[in-house]
Amino acid sequence: MSDIPALEALKQALRRLPGVGPKSAQRMAFHLLERDREGARRIAQALSEAVERVIRCRRCNNFSESELCDICSSPRRDGSLLCIVESPSDLISLDQSGVYNGLYFVLMGRLSPLDGIGPEDIGIPRLEALLDEGGVKEVVLATNLTVEGEATAHYIGELVRQRNIKATRIAYGVPIGGELEYTDRMTLARALSGRREA
Amino acid sequence: MSDIPALEALKQALRRLPGVGPKSAQRMAFHLLERDREGARRIAQALSEAVERVIRCRRCNNFSESELCDICSSPRRDGSLLCIVESPSDLISLDQSGVYNGLYFVLMGRLSPLDGIGPEDIGIPRLEALLDEGGVKEVVLATNLTVEGEATAHYIGELVRQRNIKATRIAYGVPIGGELEYTDRMTLARALSGRREA
Repeated sequence: MSDIPALEALKQALRRLPGVGPKSAQRMAFHLLERDREGARRIAQALSEAVERVIRCRRCNNFSESELCDICSSPRRDGSLLCIVESPSDLISLDQSGVYNGLYFVLMGRLSPLDGIGPEDIGIPRLEALLDEGGVKEVVLATNLTVEGEATAHYIGELVRQRNIKATRIAYGVPIGGELEYTDRMTLARALSGRREA
Repeated sequence: MSDIPALEALKQALRRLPGVGPKSAQRMAFHLLERDREGARRIAQALSEAVERVIRCRRCNNFSESELCDICSSPRRDGSLLCIVESPSDLISLDQSGVYNGLYFVLMGRLSPLDGIGPEDIGIPRLEALLDEGGVKEVVLATNLTVEGEATAHYIGELVRQRNIKATRIAYGVPIGGELEYTDRMTLARALSGRREA
């Protein structure tokens, strides 16, 4: 197939998608070229537009197309509650549970000293600045129930209590080692309403 | 997340990839936007270039960037042998076996009367024109061993024999290294009825 460099380049590029190996990349490339060239054009356009338009909210760090995201700028949200999550997908999952009406702060990952990922790398200074603005009365720690997620929650919990703000941790039902993104809504609702002081 | 139309559009677009549902599409979109924007740009560019440059070889119907693909224009290939496959990926797999040195013809799928897919839809008229040019002495039928693949092989076999050209079918049986105990009944039946003198 050495005569088709554009096809080879497409297969290579598609392997940058998470969970896509050589076989899947080939299947995707062939599918699009054989049966869905319009789809290929749409994906290309959607990728270019998303890369260009999607930025991070300057307050909560979630994806947004405006400087301040819809959640942060909503007058119906309770600004005294701040929920800390590891990623935008965790935010979506929690928010869809419908139980929580406060604001969020999206970390850029979790603390992982072994990988050299410290507080600065995940945006802790920004979180501290946000807490120092005042107004937040309770911080809900909703990092994943993994070793690193727990350590991150513990670290942030200390920072929160130092400021005389209440720190709580979600609980009940989220299985140990489980990832929030793949937990069902009911379980997430239980975890939110059953939160305890950390 | 209604405030991020470019992100929603990206998730929708990614679902056009085969085997990608809503969860995978979200994971892919978030991964690219959070950690690999350069990858997103590359995929977009590779898709656009592939859609623009990759055409089908006018002789064998395989993907190509020139009117006649490398295989069809190679002087080292045996033009008296023509192998019929259902798709470009089947062509790659067969050609990588290194045993076959003839030419190919790539069908656009397989006959499926129930879905309204007839001979014209899979390129049979082009195949007949190719056979009528003369020069082909043996047609190797390498469609898949499914009901529709078999029907397609049978249909093409008739057309080939009408032109006094030899039609052969690739052998189906127990795969190399396969254990009889774990081989399905249909395959064993084929292996038995297709037995040869040892």
